[in-house]
Amino acid sequence: MADKKLVEQITSMEEDFAQWYTDVVVKSELIGYTSVKGCMAIKPAGYAIWELIQKQLDERFKATGVQNVYMPMFIPESLLEKEKDHVEGFAPEVAWVTQGGLQPLQERLCVRPTSETLFCDFYKNDIHSYRDLPKVYNQWCSVVRWEKETRPFLRSREFLWQEGHTAHATAEEAKERTIQMLNVYADFCEEVLAIPVIRGRKTEKEKFAGAEATYTIEALMHDGKALQSGTSHNFGDGFAKAFGIQFTDKDNTLKYVHQTSWGMTTRLIGAIIMVHGDNSGLVLPPRVAPVQAVIVPIQQRKEGVLDKAYELKDRLSGFRVKVDDTDKSPGWKFAEAEMRGIPVRVEIGPKDIEAGKCVLVRRDTGEKQECALEELEESVGALLDAIQHDMLERARKHRDAHTYVAKNMEEMERILAETPGFVKAMWCGCRECEDQIKERFAATSRCMPFEQEELSDVCVCCGRPAKKMVYWGKAY
Amino acid sequence: MADKKLVEQITSMEEDFAQWYTDVVVKSELIGYTSVKGCMAIKPAGYAIWELIQKQLDERFKATGVQNVYMPMFIPESLLEKEKDHVEGFAPEVAWVTQGGLQPLQERLCVRPTSETLFCDFYKNDIHSYRDLPKVYNQWCSVVRWEKETRPFLRSREFLWQEGHTAHATAEEAKERTIQMLNVYADFCEEVLAIPVIRGRKTEKEKFAGAEATYTIEALMHDGKALQSGTSHNFGDGFAKAFGIQFTDKDNTLKYVHQTSWGMTTRLIGAIIMVHGDNSGLVLPPRVAPVQAVIVPIQQRKEGVLDKAYELKDRLSGFRVKVDDTDKSPGWKFAEAEMRGIPVRVEIGPKDIEAGKCVLVRRDTGEKQECALEELEESVGALLDAIQHDMLERARKHRDAHTYVAKNMEEMERILAETPGFVKAMWCGCRECEDQIKERFAATSRCMPFEQEELSDVCVCCGRPAKKMVYWGKAY
Repeated sequence: MADKKLVEQITSMEEDFAQWYTDVVVKSELIGYTSVKGCMAIKPAGYAIWELIQKQLDERFKATGVQNVYMPMFIPESLLEKEKDHVEGFAPEVAWVTQGGLQPLQERLCVRPTSETLFCDFYKNDIHSYRDLPKVYNQWCSVVRWEKETRPFLRSREFLWQEGHTAHATAEEAKERTIQMLNVYADFCEEVLAIPVIRGRKTEKEKFAGAEATYTIEALMHDGKALQSGTSHNFGDGFAKAFGIQFTDKDNTLKYVHQTSWGMTTRLIGAIIMVHGDNSGLVLPPRVAPVQAVIVPIQQRKEGVLDKAYELKDRLSGFRVKVDDTDKSPGWKFAEAEMRGIPVRVEIGPKDIEAGKCVLVRRDTGEKQECALEELEESVGALLDAIQHDMLERARKHRDAHTYVAKNMEEMERILAETPGFVKAMWCGCRECEDQIKERFAATSRCMPFEQEELSDVCVCCGRPAKKMVYWGKAY
Repeated sequence: MADKKLVEQITSMEEDFAQWYTDVVVKSELIGYTSVKGCMAIKPAGYAIWELIQKQLDERFKATGVQNVYMPMFIPESLLEKEKDHVEGFAPEVAWVTQGGLQPLQERLCVRPTSETLFCDFYKNDIHSYRDLPKVYNQWCSVVRWEKETRPFLRSREFLWQEGHTAHATAEEAKERTIQMLNVYADFCEEVLAIPVIRGRKTEKEKFAGAEATYTIEALMHDGKALQSGTSHNFGDGFAKAFGIQFTDKDNTLKYVHQTSWGMTTRLIGAIIMVHGDNSGLVLPPRVAPVQAVIVPIQQRKEGVLDKAYELKDRLSGFRVKVDDTDKSPGWKFAEAEMRGIPVRVEIGPKDIEAGKCVLVRRDTGEKQECALEELEESVGALLDAIQHDMLERARKHRDAHTYVAKNMEEMERILAETPGFVKAMWCGCRECEDQIKERFAATSRCMPFEQEELSDVCVCCGRPAKKMVYWGKAY
């Protein structure tokens, strides 16, 4: 009864996906609302996921030579204005500090929405010779964008992220680093978050303010909407020219550096929820689950049961494990562990102990299996591996089953209205067609994937010769 | 010649300690200056120290049950104003956001100088029953205080820190947590940073705005000035009453929670520099050294030398080690490694290889020792342990040798003028005497140490009966 009540607090995703999302985020205690409009509090269960994301992403960064730094959170207005496209893209959505202490500021400062300008200002003073290159810096911090409509993790006025900013001697090296980091992101999403992604390039319309080229990874959520999950930008020497970042090359001539930037944010937690979650709550991939297995003692007041539960926990010290020894009923504990997305549940009661076994239950499928106690470590390890693997494959199947081909506007319209998902279609390369599709279907070009296909010769919109296959979709 | 030039870039600490500090911070590449007044860029060498501090402090926190969270960086003015002493303490030094996007804000927001008010606002909604207690939350973030005079790491308009905020059912539990975290800080300083500290309580005059009691750890820098290195505050139920944070206790009555907060900042990096540094640059304790040993190949173009250097690095994989294989001279490499404070230098050349040995050099003492190659791992490990241990003992001796006793104002004046350091003196407990000492000698009460001594019966200033022994000193 009690456990039923707990689960009933979640709206079903078929009924109202947006409400389901909000319910899961709140009931699994990932966030709390605050008195600061558009900003959330990330609670321990949510922040622990972010810590696991940070740790594993940071290790992958460092393996490619990235060094972490920290730049100021404020940008003087004059600095933000130095690169024309960049300021036009960001000025309308920044927060402005106009007073420091009791004095009005002589020049107002914006709270960083992203830090290209600060890194450029820094590199201008720090780079002199080819010996100073490349610079491959990253920072973990929070940024602010004054959004009108906000949703936890997906769009909030303040969010946590990492932003990499690099400077290179040649255009080729900058391009390579841009693609390298996109691949780091894609591999991380697939291997750690169990989220399959499409890798590709953004159109001119959708690229980052000030970039020469923006690359993206796009994931498909359970409701058929796309989520941009990480971007990597090649700036060429545009920022370098605006900021005067020059170096003396080996040939003794003065050259501009070539730059990149790339970022991933707490919206990844939103992606995890919307790719893997179900009507019982969160489902966490083992590699980012703060608790990988919960041990639930059955009839815990019987002698030896709790001791056995702690003993199993000690034996599972290679994993992130906790014992739920609260005085709640086992049913309630099961429901709570499901809500929180804990990958494996270990049930152990007096009869199990007598029989020298326990019961393992998978969160992702609900499958139960008996496990001889002497095989516990191996079995739990194997089960976590299987869950991690199967979650990716299940998400991939869902994504593929919701990826469609449209040859003309009627097909596109019907697909987007009836069976939301990715729509692959050919494109002439014109801004007008992109605008028209957005206007008619509220769908945007997600990316021009690296893996191109020739679906037809002509643009889905105007019928002129096609240049690129594009993934289209409605997006968060 | 070249290496001499490198070292000469540092002013000697005897000549001008403040300039020595600035030189070390810049030449060892810990920070860079930015166009944002009063804010610094923390470069890779500096940030890597902060990462090691974070990691080890965070582990110690989590071992006591701390959970990490993230609160918004903005505080609405009305929220900041809820606790009277707190707003008086902080309002004069905060930065105000008055515009979001293209619109002026209806209520201005300050950039958090500290987050008591946000945590209180959060706890008010999140705590209902004794079952919800204790809350032992912490966040790693940056905060802003609009300082007029700034110095890298010691005082800057934005700095990085952690802030713990807890809520408890009883006053006793809150007090225990306050002292527990102070002890975590003190142990961390001594065991990890090799910095001995005095543990004690702040006077009423020096306590945190809104606290019932503030506890502190105080360290002595090489120039005899004190540095407050971490503080822990007991709020009693003051904030709880101002914010209405109540819970239903086991006895079914409604009670206010009791709260604490505690913080440590990037100023610890300033402490490391000023406690351990010397006229050749930084000296890093092994536990926070991003590079613990640098291998410098001698005559590296001779066959086999570089290969041997890499082989040694592989064998030292249990430590943080790098090979300096740049084309600089060995002398230059030595000077650079000294500037950066790398604890151990490993020299390996053709003759060493032939003799089956290498040379190990300690950064802290300059001592050299020969080391048989087959004993390398053990020797380097033992040397790092010895350095860590000796640095603490050396700092403790320096601190003790610069701790004086003053029985009257004349003695105090002479000590503070001639031999700066800690001055132990008795105090009557009156604000007037504290003010007078500050005015006359520019020295403040650092703390009332837990380990009290009876130096005399009377106050050093007014001669009335003494209540407490106090550590006084000039401070950063």
